[in-house]
Formats: sequence, C-alpha cells, structure tokens
Amino acid sequence: MVVPSSSPPLDLEVARGASTATHTVVSFHGRESTAHEDELAVEEPLEIRLAGHSLAVTMRTPGHDEELVAGFLFAERVIASRDDLDVIAHYAGPEDDPRIGNVINVLLRKPEPAVWKRLERNFFTSSACGLCGKATLDAIGLDLPPMEESLAIPLDAFYAFGPTLASAQATFERTGGLHAAGLFDPSGRLLILREDVGRHNAVDKVVGHMLQAGRLPLSRHILMVSGRTSFEIVQKALVARIPVVVSVSAPSSLAVQLALASGMTLVGFLRDGRLNVYTGQHRVAAS
Amino acid sequence: MVVPSSSPPLDLEVARGASTATHTVVSFHGRESTAHEDELAVEEPLEIRLAGHSLAVTMRTPGHDEELVAGFLFAERVIASRDDLDVIAHYAGPEDDPRIGNVINVLLRKPEPAVWKRLERNFFTSSACGLCGKATLDAIGLDLPPMEESLAIPLDAFYAFGPTLASAQATFERTGGLHAAGLFDPSGRLLILREDVGRHNAVDKVVGHMLQAGRLPLSRHILMVSGRTSFEIVQKALVARIPVVVSVSAPSSLAVQLALASGMTLVGFLRDGRLNVYTGQHRVAAS
Repeated sequence: MVVPSSSPPLDLEVARGASTATHTVVSFHGRESTAHEDELAVEEPLEIRLAGHSLAVTMRTPGHDEELVAGFLFAERVIASRDDLDVIAHYAGPEDDPRIGNVINVLLRKPEPAVWKRLERNFFTSSACGLCGKATLDAIGLDLPPMEESLAIPLDAFYAFGPTLASAQATFERTGGLHAAGLFDPSGRLLILREDVGRHNAVDKVVGHMLQAGRLPLSRHILMVSGRTSFEIVQKALVARIPVVVSVSAPSSLAVQLALASGMTLVGFLRDGRLNVYTGQHRVAAS
Repeated sequence: MVVPSSSPPLDLEVARGASTATHTVVSFHGRESTAHEDELAVEEPLEIRLAGHSLAVTMRTPGHDEELVAGFLFAERVIASRDDLDVIAHYAGPEDDPRIGNVINVLLRKPEPAVWKRLERNFFTSSACGLCGKATLDAIGLDLPPMEESLAIPLDAFYAFGPTLASAQATFERTGGLHAAGLFDPSGRLLILREDVGRHNAVDKVVGHMLQAGRLPLSRHILMVSGRTSFEIVQKALVARIPVVVSVSAPSSLAVQLALASGMTLVGFLRDGRLNVYTGQHRVAAS
C-alpha cells in the first residue's frame, strides 16, 4: 500500500470563465493509492437579468454564456429571433466583484407586453442570485456548521456500495432511464433506495423517508448516487448532515468546493474496485 | 433486413402513479430490425402546493411522492423535522381530474413568518402548474404545429453520429463530468458541439448559437445529446423545429409522449452499431 504524501488541498481555485478546474485527488485501485491532478467540470451559477430584473438562475459550465442565454430565452419563447435581442452581454462591474462572469444582462428590442406579463407571473424573483458570488457560496457552507463526524469507513465497504446499490436497483435494469440514490449505514447495509428520472429527486425521496421516520440527522450515514455529483446533491446531503457522499461518476467543481467548505467526504468514480477521494480522506480507512 | 410489421403506436399510455410504462420500439442492430416492447422510466410533473399556494413544480418519476416533497421542503429549509408537517397528501379531486396523482398538498403545523416571507419572495408563482394535467400536455404539443418535415436519414448516418460527437467532445474526455449536445446536418456533418454540466444547457447553447447566427428554424437538422432524453430536451428541440433527436441512452415517457404528439423522430440507445426508434420511424431510412 502506498500512502500518499499529501492530502487533497483545502480549497479549489476556479479561474474566471474556465470550463475545467484542476484538483488533487487520491485514487485507490484496490489498496494501492496515488495522488494525482484531476480535471473537474466547472459548475457555476449563471444569473440571467432582463432589463435589470433577475429572470432565472441556472447552474452551468462557463463558456458560450451568451449562446446559453439566447437559447434559453428562445426555448422559453421570450424571443422569436435574434432581431428581438438588443443587448446580451456579461455584467461588467468592478473588477473585484465576484459575480463577474456569472451574470448576463439582456435587453429586448421591443418587449411584448404579453411576454412581459408572463415573465412577471412565472419567472421574476425579487431577490438577486444568492449563489453567483464566491462570497455568498462561502456563506452557504458556513451557515451550517462543518461536519466533524469522525466516522471511518473501511475501503472494502466503499467497494461494496456499488454492487449493493446496483443489485437493489430493480427499475433501472428495466428502463436504463432512472437515477438511484441509496443510504447506507457504516457497516455497509443499504437502508433505503429510491429511483427517479432526476438524481436530486431520488435524494429528496431518501432524505424525506428518513425525515418522516424521525431518523434525522443522518450523521452516521453514507449517501450513494448513480451518475455525477452536482452542487445540489452535496447541498442536500449537507442539510441532512450526511458526512460521506459517493458516486459512480465525476463530481463538479462546485460539488467539490462545497464538500471542502463543509468538511464532507466526497468519493467519485466508484466502480470496478477503484475509487477517487476528492475531499475528506480521513473518513476512508485504507488499512 | 427484417421489416417490422407494425410501426410504433401513436400514443403512450401511462397508468396513474406508475413508475414505468411500456412502449413499442423498433430496434436496429446493423440493418436487422425487430419491434419489441420496451420499458420506459415515467417522467411526470409534480406540483407542490403549500397551504393552497403553488410552491414548485418538479419533473419526477411517480412513487414515494410524499417522501419527495418532505425531502424537498427539508432541503429548502422550509421544515426542520417531521413535527413541522401537519398534512402532506395527494390532491384528491374529482376522479376524472387529470391532475390527480401529480399534485401534493402540504400544510405546515406552525408556519414561521420568516420562512413564509422567503417562500413568497423566492418560490411562489401565481399560476398553477401548466403541465400537471394530460389535457395541458396535449395543449403544449398542439400549440406548435406538428413537424411534417419529410427528411429521411440513412441508418449509416445515424450510426456515425455517436463516434463523430465523441471524437469532437474534447472536454468530456478530461473530466468525465460534462454532457454534450451536437447539431448535425442530414449528410452527417457536425455543425456545432457544446458541453455543459447540464444537458439542457448544452442544448440551449447549440440553439442559441444558431439563433445568433440567424439560422433558425432548424428543420433540416438532427440534435444528438449524450445521456438520457427528458421532456425538456424534446421541448427545446420542438421550439427550434428540430425533427430528429438522438441520444445514447433512454428517453423518458414524457419525452416519448411529446415526440409522438409533435411528429418528431426520437432515437435512443445509439451505441455500438445499434439504436432504438421510439417515434417517427419514417425518417429512419433503413435501405
């Protein structure tokens, strides 16, 4: 067994506008481990502002933001062609404003009153994006106390989560179209499994089940999700005080940032006797 | 070559509350085709109503809806424990109301004024769910004219879309965390590729690019997405008038229903020289 000389760092820097970010992960293959640089897909919120009103916030990968907003407005039938657009441009505030890069301003050439009315009814929120600046993201992490749970899960238990979840996932086998979320106890026992077309819904169902059973907080539990780990999944786990989140695929940059800020253990690419530890390696007991 | 005796049906019935639905698909393996029954994951909207106000609509797979709502309210910090919940129950309107099964009513025991204020600011919409009844879903399809484009794409062109998209998808290779959307012309040429942590964002970027280039509608084009096809993807393609949507994985029931209603060709599980035709087989030229 190779003990990596360095633990993952305590922060993850994402360059403004970058679509990938580099993060040090510890990869286990069986009992062998190596630390290496891994590329993460950047996930950041984008606030769409229409004539100064906050229209929508979407989590997205930076890049081609103006196209994203044009396509979103077209799909929502706010615009019918490029002729309806007057301005579509990134917010250019003071250089040190953390929201720079994550806010797009739109002006329509000749707003239809009917469209405007529909937007007011269905879209506009009176509050600005609570996530668009890093300062606010920090606040989200700090608003709940970091998780100091000293749980340690044996490596073999991690390797067993995947097959256990897969064998319990009856519907997925039939449709190929459902995500799963499973909650394990530290001994590796699957307590509950829920499936849904939306990964976040599967997690809500798991946490909702435990809430209705009067079994929150889940501070001795492990959440496993199929597919990728987004910010939203980590946020839901954090509120339920789940200290370990595991997935079969990659986490996003924002998922890693929130896991770091909240002291959560984040494991990804758990498959075929391998896994990557992105944050909180102290809960992965390798010996 | 085996010509299937029956085309896919013109409607897809989903039993109330079911999490899967059966649909006849035509599977091609090379040039051989067979028609068979396929299980789809059900995707339907769920409206969460709090004290009679519409709080949120989420696309979800039916089943454990009360858990989903309890977990959602907990994650949004509307409730802190089950003690905060008074009622959480399905809407029980007249037996023939199509919204039955897709609306959950919630009453809180003692709503905190601060929570209520935040909900009013960030969540409540004054309009009811526009998607929660089948009648309204029909309306969405009919609100835009069905696509009568007589485009016919050779089977070999379909098989080539996947490798073309994969070889162009530079970022995905590095992170494993990004979805891709690509737009092809009928000759199989990739016109544009966009990547994002959100599949719907990648589609918005593609359509937004073409909109900004003044190249809408896209009625001679093929959209390919990585992963699954949800209702949202089909809806965005429909607004852009894209007649053929292809993915490497499964569509949801609602994606198939909207594709049927709008005359769109929907192809899934395009990989390794195989594909499934879910709707609009007339645009798949097998000979």
